[in-house]
Amino acid sequence: MNSKDKKIDSVVWGGTVITMDASLSVISDSVITISDGKIQNVFSQKSFNPPTGVESIDARGCLVMPGLINGHTHAGMTLLRGIADDLPLYDWLQKHIFPLERKLGNQEFVSLGTKLACLEMIRSGTTLFNDMYYFEEATAKTADEMGIRAICGQTYVEISGVEKASEVFQKFDSFFKEIQKYKLVTGALAPHSIYGLSEKLWKEMVAYAGQNDLMIHTHLCETKEEVERIKTERGVTPIEWFDSIGLWEKRTVCAHSIELSSSDISFLGERNVGIVYNPESNLKLGNGICPVVELREAGAAVSFGTDGTASNNNLDLFREVDFGTKVQAFKYGVGKLPARESVKMLTIEGAKALHLDHLVGSLEAGKSADLIVMDISSPHAVPIYDWYSYLVYSASQGDVRDTMVAGKVLMKNRQMLHCDEKQILDEARRWGIQIKELNSKLQNPR
Amino acid sequence: MNSKDKKIDSVVWGGTVITMDASLSVISDSVITISDGKIQNVFSQKSFNPPTGVESIDARGCLVMPGLINGHTHAGMTLLRGIADDLPLYDWLQKHIFPLERKLGNQEFVSLGTKLACLEMIRSGTTLFNDMYYFEEATAKTADEMGIRAICGQTYVEISGVEKASEVFQKFDSFFKEIQKYKLVTGALAPHSIYGLSEKLWKEMVAYAGQNDLMIHTHLCETKEEVERIKTERGVTPIEWFDSIGLWEKRTVCAHSIELSSSDISFLGERNVGIVYNPESNLKLGNGICPVVELREAGAAVSFGTDGTASNNNLDLFREVDFGTKVQAFKYGVGKLPARESVKMLTIEGAKALHLDHLVGSLEAGKSADLIVMDISSPHAVPIYDWYSYLVYSASQGDVRDTMVAGKVLMKNRQMLHCDEKQILDEARRWGIQIKELNSKLQNPR
Repeated sequence: MNSKDKKIDSVVWGGTVITMDASLSVISDSVITISDGKIQNVFSQKSFNPPTGVESIDARGCLVMPGLINGHTHAGMTLLRGIADDLPLYDWLQKHIFPLERKLGNQEFVSLGTKLACLEMIRSGTTLFNDMYYFEEATAKTADEMGIRAICGQTYVEISGVEKASEVFQKFDSFFKEIQKYKLVTGALAPHSIYGLSEKLWKEMVAYAGQNDLMIHTHLCETKEEVERIKTERGVTPIEWFDSIGLWEKRTVCAHSIELSSSDISFLGERNVGIVYNPESNLKLGNGICPVVELREAGAAVSFGTDGTASNNNLDLFREVDFGTKVQAFKYGVGKLPARESVKMLTIEGAKALHLDHLVGSLEAGKSADLIVMDISSPHAVPIYDWYSYLVYSASQGDVRDTMVAGKVLMKNRQMLHCDEKQILDEARRWGIQIKELNSKLQNPR
Repeated sequence: MNSKDKKIDSVVWGGTVITMDASLSVISDSVITISDGKIQNVFSQKSFNPPTGVESIDARGCLVMPGLINGHTHAGMTLLRGIADDLPLYDWLQKHIFPLERKLGNQEFVSLGTKLACLEMIRSGTTLFNDMYYFEEATAKTADEMGIRAICGQTYVEISGVEKASEVFQKFDSFFKEIQKYKLVTGALAPHSIYGLSEKLWKEMVAYAGQNDLMIHTHLCETKEEVERIKTERGVTPIEWFDSIGLWEKRTVCAHSIELSSSDISFLGERNVGIVYNPESNLKLGNGICPVVELREAGAAVSFGTDGTASNNNLDLFREVDFGTKVQAFKYGVGKLPARESVKMLTIEGAKALHLDHLVGSLEAGKSADLIVMDISSPHAVPIYDWYSYLVYSASQGDVRDTMVAGKVLMKNRQMLHCDEKQILDEARRWGIQIKELNSKLQNPR
């Protein structure tokens, strides 16, 4: 049966569609037909009358675009939002985050944190997040329940003390088996960082990824100190060391990627490596600026990411793209990363960086119906001279009116349709009170 | 009559008040009594029952804080939001903004642009803006109508071609006379920049400010080129040159202030100069980063500013403070401008920079009742471990529930109470269509 003959389940009609297809088509008076969670067709038709018996989303006067892609998150730690602000990375991680995680790290903490993260992401137009944390089975289950698409990267870090190395691969086996049932979830391997695992374990991770055809998601070159330490200890840059253990032959996504030499940049650009630019976290922690313009010129696909709420402290990609685009103008000069390119990074190029561009990132026939409807009636959206400029420099999370993933409407007119938002928020506030007390005790032991 | 005996007009009660007073008091179960537009008292009282016959704002579960202060705007050009993005300052100004302003510069354009700006500012929690533009009599009238507090700086720039030098002071005379009737408006003199006026005219401006006891608002050291040109032509830095003509003896507010030497910074810190940090505009135009941490250490009062919508492209101070605080962490290291300090800059220190801290900037008895009520029930506001962290790193413009200026509620439950928002937006969209055509003609003359 031709896909055009399939029964239409829903239509999104009347809006202006920013498709983000290869020719960046913009379609006014648009109709998007959706069947079995996939886009069947996108076309222009004035005076369209939605067929009866079909879910209809009236987007007249609105902008319709692919859902935003968050390339690097730690959704499970959202309950730690802003728990230890204005501290440098090492103190923040070693004195606050790791000790709290050792106490709190369990399924319930991760599950509730992820629910909270999903609420914020769905409300701000994100339809796919690439996650890295402990207990990702809870993240996967929660993402599936909340209806949002996720790449769940089960992490491991030897230095945190949360998990034992001997049990890692056994846990991985059961994790990847368990999450197969979640349609919206892709599993990934997320060894924390070059410094977070022994050389032996890193090699085993790469081998495991090869055996199981898994994407690897890691933190790369986040600080000068990290890079200098590797160079001193191993005589090569992190990029070169990872090359020596065969990492770059796998599908890889690297967060941060700040401290790169020119040859590192050329090397990464030529390989199938996705880069995630986390400007808010990187500047908040005082770490530096990812060389996005150079990486893209070298051929790399770059995604935006918020990082976790403990170092941002929000998951709002509209804020991230505005911030990150301006920061690149500062680093490279105005016009080197124009708004249009940043919107690519939020959508189709972000999907490519995460190796999922066959599935999402643009509104085209055959792709999953992961989209958002933007209400452009607020004062900050008037006038609009260029859609991409609006999206990057003016749009606010509150402009997202509807969010759909795989054809299912998760938020309509800013109301969450399939979860009890109040209950999640109340529970998160209760946990917040306990976490505050715990952090206080950990910082001031008797 | 003691102020305590005056009739109470309204109460804002039940919220947690971030006072921003000298000891940064935070008052839970708060009651703010307001009389004649001024704060009569701020105190804590559980189980408060608002008196009858008095306007009552129930802020239970909310945060109440001083209205935000925007230290540098061009409200009148808001219809040019994003008209020429991703261009360097010179091209942006000379090829797009100045030609458009020569065609469009009139009362109607400024009045409508200001209305649109006021809508966005009131919605995002701003209660005072320090403006600089042409036709500020229209800005002043509009601010008064919209109920927002403004410092209206009538500008002059010889190079733009909008106005003739011979008519400037005559126009100033009638401007300052005309705006006296607007209770919420303070007049100021706004010579555009060191390079925008002749030496003769700059000296006349300083003399005029002295004769009329006016604050001077100007653009200072925005680019390297500007500073190098002055140094080459005049043999001194802009700071030194302004000193030679007596500018620093006046109440002065300087926007941008990026390219400053160490001695410039010490010099400014010791004088009664307000500095405005416009991080989004400064990075978007690729200009650089204001040395905020050093300026504050030297003693200067620093305000946040959005600049105009043509170089931002929004007037959202919550976005600005998040951006600007992280950019300072990048420049100086984490913790050098902690969230609490940034909130000062948004409120009491911002007021000091604008020489209005006797009137606004904190919630204390005797000050004007310029305040906002923040709804903290959205996912991005959960949990909150520190109020200042929330305000800087997580809060969004949509969290502003109510906005009050001088005791008058301008927005309640996100509804504008005293203007026809739809009419303003419709008119702004119509102008937008015409401006787009005009810009296109100016860029592609036959």
